[in-house]
Parts: sequence; structure tokens; C-alpha cells
Amino acid sequence: MRVPSPKQRVFIETGRKEFVRNGYGSSSIRTIAQEAGVSLSALYYHYKNKQDLLLAILMDGVDTYDAVCDAELARAGDDPVEQLCAFVRGNVKFRTQFPDQGRLIATEVRNLEPEGARLYEERRRVGRSRMRDIVEAGVAAGLFTTKYPDDCRRSILAMVSAIANWYDPAGPDTPDMIADRYAELALNLLCPNGLPRTPNDGREQE
Amino acid sequence: MRVPSPKQRVFIETGRKEFVRNGYGSSSIRTIAQEAGVSLSALYYHYKNKQDLLLAILMDGVDTYDAVCDAELARAGDDPVEQLCAFVRGNVKFRTQFPDQGRLIATEVRNLEPEGARLYEERRRVGRSRMRDIVEAGVAAGLFTTKYPDDCRRSILAMVSAIANWYDPAGPDTPDMIADRYAELALNLLCPNGLPRTPNDGREQE
Repeated sequence: MRVPSPKQRVFIETGRKEFVRNGYGSSSIRTIAQEAGVSLSALYYHYKNKQDLLLAILMDGVDTYDAVCDAELARAGDDPVEQLCAFVRGNVKFRTQFPDQGRLIATEVRNLEPEGARLYEERRRVGRSRMRDIVEAGVAAGLFTTKYPDDCRRSILAMVSAIANWYDPAGPDTPDMIADRYAELALNLLCPNGLPRTPNDGREQE
Repeated sequence: MRVPSPKQRVFIETGRKEFVRNGYGSSSIRTIAQEAGVSLSALYYHYKNKQDLLLAILMDGVDTYDAVCDAELARAGDDPVEQLCAFVRGNVKFRTQFPDQGRLIATEVRNLEPEGARLYEERRRVGRSRMRDIVEAGVAAGLFTTKYPDDCRRSILAMVSAIANWYDPAGPDTPDMIADRYAELALNLLCPNGLPRTPNDGREQE
């Protein structure tokens, strides 16, 4: 999917707020145009209907998620434990810094019509393989000793997603503190007998 | 809230199907009455509007959740480990046997208007304290040695909820198999250094 233009970005931001507030079904494309300060036909020039805008908003959410995760993964080394911690950190950042994007993914994907759902699923598949690859690499290296790597993968994704339900930007927990705790919990799942060796063993932290 | 009458039960089942299919915003109370085989005024005799029916459907979902969990907890002994495993089993049963109830709780609670939201939250609080009590009892008994009991509690709830996203009744995993695996994963989180054999025996295990 193409990167949204500055004008499209305005529609995406306005539409996201409206969908979060009212839900997709009760949101009106007319209201979104009004709140974006443009005519309805100006909006229709970019998105042919509400469905088309929903798809753009969800795709933008996935783009944001991918960018946040990939930035963390790029900073981490090749070690599966480091990669896992970076992935958890990226997910915590996404859920705490972009809560509306995460919320819409959780609630409105089911409102995509078949063609949009197909495009969206295809797009998501890339992101899912990221976590799968890390877990497989950790299992292959003998680091992740769990008997249930698939359940762990799904559980870790669910755990970090749920942070959005209770995270309070004004509360005492910073995203970094939360990321550290959840990385530890993720490792408790993947390494039920403890890690064979500590992460960054004998190495300087970046 | 009163137990729904047989007639109300028909509206709850029909409305739930419609809300799962179209989302609350796009669902029509007229269609629900039609599919239930009654006139619109017959439906309005029991529920004053779509909002009122949504609240009844969500409350019915919580009733089902509570009944399934409490049945499992009643079968378990007082030991927090047994209670935790029973709670996980109850959650797995709810997610696998009543997927639509769980799905609506995940997606439509935010469509409740303030008064309904207040009633619903009050009702949910009871259920939440169930898991909180188990975790606190396990921590007090020295069985759950995690440094992060609150994160574990939230994580376990998120993990078991997400089972609904991939569970396939035609697949190879029975709810009992899933419950056993997830109870083990929940204990990996709560007891990161392994489970002491009996409470208060003062021994540490690797």
C-alpha cells in the first residue's frame, strides 16, 4: 500500500478518532469530512467510501506497528533472547504510544468487507511471521525450552496487547518499565526452567 | 439482574447472532425482531431499545462466564495452585464453548451508554476479584513467587481470552488439552523458579 499523502493523513487521523469514539457502524463519513474541514466530495476523491477509509486506517495502524517493532529489532543483536526482548519492547511502545491504532485493530477488523479483509490479512501475515521467526530461532538454539512454543507465541502477543487496557500515561509505570517486566514474563513462558545463559553474557549493553 | 425468561432468551440469542454478524452499530432491532419471529412491539415489550438489548446480551455473557468458572472452582480444592488451574480451565471452556459471548464482550462493551456501562462494570468487578483472590492467596502462601503478580494476573486473563482467536472445534486440540497447557503456562508466569512441593515447606526448587 502506498504511503498516505499529507491530505490523506488528515483523513486517517480524523477518521480514526471518529471510529474510536462511535464505532465503525455508527460513524458517518459526512461527519469525518466536516471534522477534517473539507467537503464530502473532497474526501471521496481520496477514499471511495467509509469502508475504503477504514481499510486505510487499519493499514496505517499496521504500518505504525511494523515501524515501531522493526526499529526495536534493528537495535537488538541477533540473539533470539535479545530479539524477543526487543519485540516485546516494540509491542509495549505501540500499545502505549498508539493506543487508538491498537484499539481499532482489535475491534474494527471484523467490519472489513471480503476484499479489504483479504488485503488486510495478507498485510498482517508479514508481522506475524516476525514473532514466529524469533521463537523458532530460540527453540532451534536450545534457548527456549518450552514444550509449547505456539501457545507461548500467542500468549505473549495477547499479554502485550492487553497492556492497552490498563496503561495510564499519567500513572507511575513508564513504557520502558513495563517493557522490562513483560520481557521477563515472556522469558518465563519460553524458558520455564530458566535461561541456559544470561542475555548479553560477558558483553557490554548497547 | 433477573434471569431472562424463555422469551427473553430467544431475543438474547437472536440479538447476539445479529451483533456478532454486523456489529452493534450496523445491527437493526427490526431485523432482530424479524429473525426472532415476533413483531417489533413484542420485542419492545421486553427491551426498550437496542441499547437495552445489548446490555442484556452482555450481562448474559458475564453470567455464562461466571457459571462456567464457578463450576470449575467448586470442583477444585482450596489450594491456590488447584484454584488457578480450575480458573484457567473455566476460562478455556468459556472461550471455546461460548465464543460469541466472549467476542461481544471484547468488541461491544464500548458501545454501552453511561448507565449501562456503569451496571456492566459493577457486574464485571465481581468476576475480576475471583482471579485477584487466587493470585493473592498464592502469593501469601509463598507458592506464587513472581515479582509481578498484577502483570501475571492481567497476562493470564489475556492469554486465555486470546484462545478464542485460533481455537477450532474441528481441530486436534480439545478444550481439556488446551486447559492443561495454559494452566502450565500460567504457573510458569506465577512461579518463575518452579513450584514448591507443598505450601510453606520452606524449600526452594530449581
